[in-house]
Amino acid sequence: GGRIRVATADKKFDAAIRARLHMDYGFFNGGKNFTTDATDGFQVRRAFLGVAGKVYTDWTYEFTANFADNRGGGAQIQAANIGYTGIPGWTLVAGVMQPKFTLDDSTSSNDIAFMERAPIGNIVVGIGGSDSRTAIGVTNRGTSHFVAAYVTGNSTNTAGTFDDQVNLLGRAAYSFWSANEGSAGIGVSGVLQTSPQAAARPVAAGTATTTIAFGDRPGVRIGGNRTSLTSTGAINQIDSAYAYGADLGMNFKSFWAAAEYYNFGAEYSDLTATGARQTRPDPEFSGYYVSAGYILTGERRSYNVGEWRGVSPSWPVGQNGIGAWEVAARYSQVDLIDRDAGINGTGTGKETNWTLGVNWYVNPAIRFMLNHVISKTERPNGQDVELDITAARMQFQF
Amino acid sequence: GGRIRVATADKKFDAAIRARLHMDYGFFNGGKNFTTDATDGFQVRRAFLGVAGKVYTDWTYEFTANFADNRGGGAQIQAANIGYTGIPGWTLVAGVMQPKFTLDDSTSSNDIAFMERAPIGNIVVGIGGSDSRTAIGVTNRGTSHFVAAYVTGNSTNTAGTFDDQVNLLGRAAYSFWSANEGSAGIGVSGVLQTSPQAAARPVAAGTATTTIAFGDRPGVRIGGNRTSLTSTGAINQIDSAYAYGADLGMNFKSFWAAAEYYNFGAEYSDLTATGARQTRPDPEFSGYYVSAGYILTGERRSYNVGEWRGVSPSWPVGQNGIGAWEVAARYSQVDLIDRDAGINGTGTGKETNWTLGVNWYVNPAIRFMLNHVISKTERPNGQDVELDITAARMQFQF
Amino acid sequence: GGRIRVATADKKFDAAIRARLHMDYGFFNGGKNFTTDATDGFQVRRAFLGVAGKVYTDWTYEFTANFADNRGGGAQIQAANIGYTGIPGWTLVAGVMQPKFTLDDSTSSNDIAFMERAPIGNIVVGIGGSDSRTAIGVTNRGTSHFVAAYVTGNSTNTAGTFDDQVNLLGRAAYSFWSANEGSAGIGVSGVLQTSPQAAARPVAAGTATTTIAFGDRPGVRIGGNRTSLTSTGAINQIDSAYAYGADLGMNFKSFWAAAEYYNFGAEYSDLTATGARQTRPDPEFSGYYVSAGYILTGERRSYNVGEWRGVSPSWPVGQNGIGAWEVAARYSQVDLIDRDAGINGTGTGKETNWTLGVNWYVNPAIRFMLNHVISKTERPNGQDVELDITAARMQFQF
Repeated sequence: GGRIRVATADKKFDAAIRARLHMDYGFFNGGKNFTTDATDGFQVRRAFLGVAGKVYTDWTYEFTANFADNRGGGAQIQAANIGYTGIPGWTLVAGVMQPKFTLDDSTSSNDIAFMERAPIGNIVVGIGGSDSRTAIGVTNRGTSHFVAAYVTGNSTNTAGTFDDQVNLLGRAAYSFWSANEGSAGIGVSGVLQTSPQAAARPVAAGTATTTIAFGDRPGVRIGGNRTSLTSTGAINQIDSAYAYGADLGMNFKSFWAAAEYYNFGAEYSDLTATGARQTRPDPEFSGYYVSAGYILTGERRSYNVGEWRGVSPSWPVGQNGIGAWEVAARYSQVDLIDRDAGINGTGTGKETNWTLGVNWYVNPAIRFMLNHVISKTERPNGQDVELDITAARMQFQF
Repeated sequence: GGRIRVATADKKFDAAIRARLHMDYGFFNGGKNFTTDATDGFQVRRAFLGVAGKVYTDWTYEFTANFADNRGGGAQIQAANIGYTGIPGWTLVAGVMQPKFTLDDSTSSNDIAFMERAPIGNIVVGIGGSDSRTAIGVTNRGTSHFVAAYVTGNSTNTAGTFDDQVNLLGRAAYSFWSANEGSAGIGVSGVLQTSPQAAARPVAAGTATTTIAFGDRPGVRIGGNRTSLTSTGAINQIDSAYAYGADLGMNFKSFWAAAEYYNFGAEYSDLTATGARQTRPDPEFSGYYVSAGYILTGERRSYNVGEWRGVSPSWPVGQNGIGAWEVAARYSQVDLIDRDAGINGTGTGKETNWTLGVNWYVNPAIRFMLNHVISKTERPNGQDVELDITAARMQFQF
Repeated sequence: GGRIRVATADKKFDAAIRARLHMDYGFFNGGKNFTTDATDGFQVRRAFLGVAGKVYTDWTYEFTANFADNRGGGAQIQAANIGYTGIPGWTLVAGVMQPKFTLDDSTSSNDIAFMERAPIGNIVVGIGGSDSRTAIGVTNRGTSHFVAAYVTGNSTNTAGTFDDQVNLLGRAAYSFWSANEGSAGIGVSGVLQTSPQAAARPVAAGTATTTIAFGDRPGVRIGGNRTSLTSTGAINQIDSAYAYGADLGMNFKSFWAAAEYYNFGAEYSDLTATGARQTRPDPEFSGYYVSAGYILTGERRSYNVGEWRGVSPSWPVGQNGIGAWEVAARYSQVDLIDRDAGINGTGTGKETNWTLGVNWYVNPAIRFMLNHVISKTERPNGQDVELDITAARMQFQF
């Protein structure tokens, strides 16, 4: 795909320049109770530039910066890690990375079927995974299984004054069917944040604050946080946070389907911030999505033991073809209300989104996406919110 | 010029690493009424690093980051776009780019004759063009004509809370003379900002603020904004902004000359910010420059249908030569006072600059520039300001 | 080492992509009077990506960005300079660079024996050298001598409102012994800051403030400034600052040793900030370190006329070897108390650090480091502070 790649004749070394550009345009149609002026316009969603390769046969490296920043902030490390692959099937990796965690997040953003991953996944990986995460990990991959385990700290774009978070992440996937016509499998993922981010130190029970918040936006990132319809807000004075759940994926020829379900929450400390004994039960939430799609031009989105392989057009535009065309739909829900635990403020809610998408794969380097999101949020106070979003992406990668 | 470029044998793919370093040193001699301590010293004016090339024959890409930041801010996207060139003469382009707009701004910063473009051009392109601009555009180029049209949004380094700007840009150029001895042509450029930046939403007339400001510095960027002698300040409660004008360029052997003139302004809303009916006429301003130069060593600065080709030394230093030497002068004026429209505050004025320059092209990759700027600003209150600037640039590019 | 390097057949041009990743993990054990919660965790210490090479035989260039930023700030220029090498032995260089200054700082961060250079060196180079420094310089290198002189301004990550600093730096080194078994030499370095950073202008004596501060952290950068145990704080109303000292380096086969000693200080203006006559003597301080090491596997850390060459493993891991293993120790001291000059506040002190290190050179591209620092600070008020630090580094470069 136009990649600058060089390798030595003995194949002990290779290096490639990598680039990824995702540029979005979108606009918002507020419905019931949505009075904010959500920001219509362009957004550079991802702008990666870097190098990746291997040295001395067994050592891999990846070094990528992300320049996407059209709402302020500056360039950041997207990935900067080295790996050891000297033991067949195993990879040891350390540095800044995106851990393999959940089905959706294990798939490259170049290859996901919708412009954004489902909110439930973003919330779960945000606890201790996601991109730009400092981590040490180990993975093992076979023809029908994949397992991964990581210890992670903060992400590199987290300006922390206090000790890094400590998170334990694990994922396992098993492919129970694989044939010429397609493949299918299940996966489980779990994260335990044993040491949450602290807002002050020392964290004596009842005197200071450890905190986490759960929330996501309904489908596109244009317009900053103004479209964040659902968030628990800060859940303070916690000892730990966690998530666990399962995923299913399958493709049969050009048809594919996927689903993921997760429980997540936090455990309160014994004492509240005022020093009183904590009497509320621990907050727990859940969410899920189901999605399916079809490639009209005959190519496949292949399920590959816990992750997806992207669609590559058989006949690129200009090479006697019209590229590949895919249609897809997703229904997702995340419920961020827990009345017993006291998480039922005016900003939270139960959000359901329908996402309809069309993807055009011009050639292996270029893709255009069109998404329409119909989002409804049930608020604890009954002031439900509706928002429609139409957005498009221009994608280039090598 | 030392560029890392790779291409496939079938010429369907190529890729090159691009770098550009412009490093300035300058100092200021305040004259009449200039009492500020303008910052003498070094400045990294441009520090670009990126890749550019083509994939699948007809698709171009450009991905460049700018690391220049010696006064705070961080690295940003300079350009990140893809283009389709499958129709001969035509280019469709989308992403982050520098639209072809005005004669001076259509010329690469590697090739401009002075360290900075003239203030009138910077003001005009700032409305909806300039570098790092999110845009979609189309251009057509023939042997004697060039036309371009764009729809643009914010620039990527604009942290906006509200809807992106919407700007319509157009440019046309025609070369009426082309011969062995040189070339000459005219151009016209126009921009209409149909949706200005908003400082609050909703923009109900009389209740909130849309805004634009016009201004530039006299010739160098060292010292941040402390040398910004002329600015309209914020012009609020506007419906639109615009600029239009014409340019002339010609070279005869080693002599070249250029001129540009632009009108620009804004249209007030019906109501002022206090809700009263707007009674003032709409603000309108103008500016121009004329410039000329001569390459002492016989090379040429060639006019090329609406833009300039840079000077490339015939005998680089160390290759039996002394490089190429160019002398150039520019007179520029911009009048940012409109008393009828109420734009006559103490910070605005009518600024005229003489810029004298000597350029040394050591080889195709390296250039040194020396500029002296004599700047005079007539203030509405009669407190005229004088400022002399001496600055030098070290330039490296491939 | 896996570097992407291309060159033309006539060797007039070459270019290489350069990368450097230093990722640290560390934790702190507070001792006597150290009650701060120093931030345990990961830190990306250096993340460099760039290009370097030469054009037209005699001109070199270097362009490197640093993306390390896990505590906020953004990517910055690490180096961006061009050099002229047309006169044998001489190099003229201009742009953003790390001047050759002191023995430790003349050695690449890829090759230093401990995770961090000694505090005394960091303080001294901080006056007018260090990385990301705007500068013009000249160096001359022979088989047994090296001399360098620079005029420097601010570093690019200094957001200054006023005139740049002006610093004069010089360094000379002489190798008095060189044989098959090893090499030894001495060096001297000196810096004079003739124009300090100003906090306001004009700096009329007694009315405004020029300022400098001296301080460093005991051995690792994890945890931001929370482990900065010793600092003079701002020394205000100064005319100049300076440092000068000497260094010794030697290696005999696999054993090596080094020492550096510096005096540094500032000269007060005639009047204090309140306009009174300055009666205190000028502040002056000093510091030093001695270090030694041994490579257990037989490789060498070679002294090379004023700088160190790094260790390259003879038998990389996976190539019938266990890599190279080095043990090293350093004792360093810096005394930032000057009672006569009024620099004896509660934050300053006399800091001594023992640093013990083990380095594992897996192959020429990968190194792991383990450091243990035992730090003691004698405060002017007798409230001495103890702090132990254990830290590790994963290093990758090409």
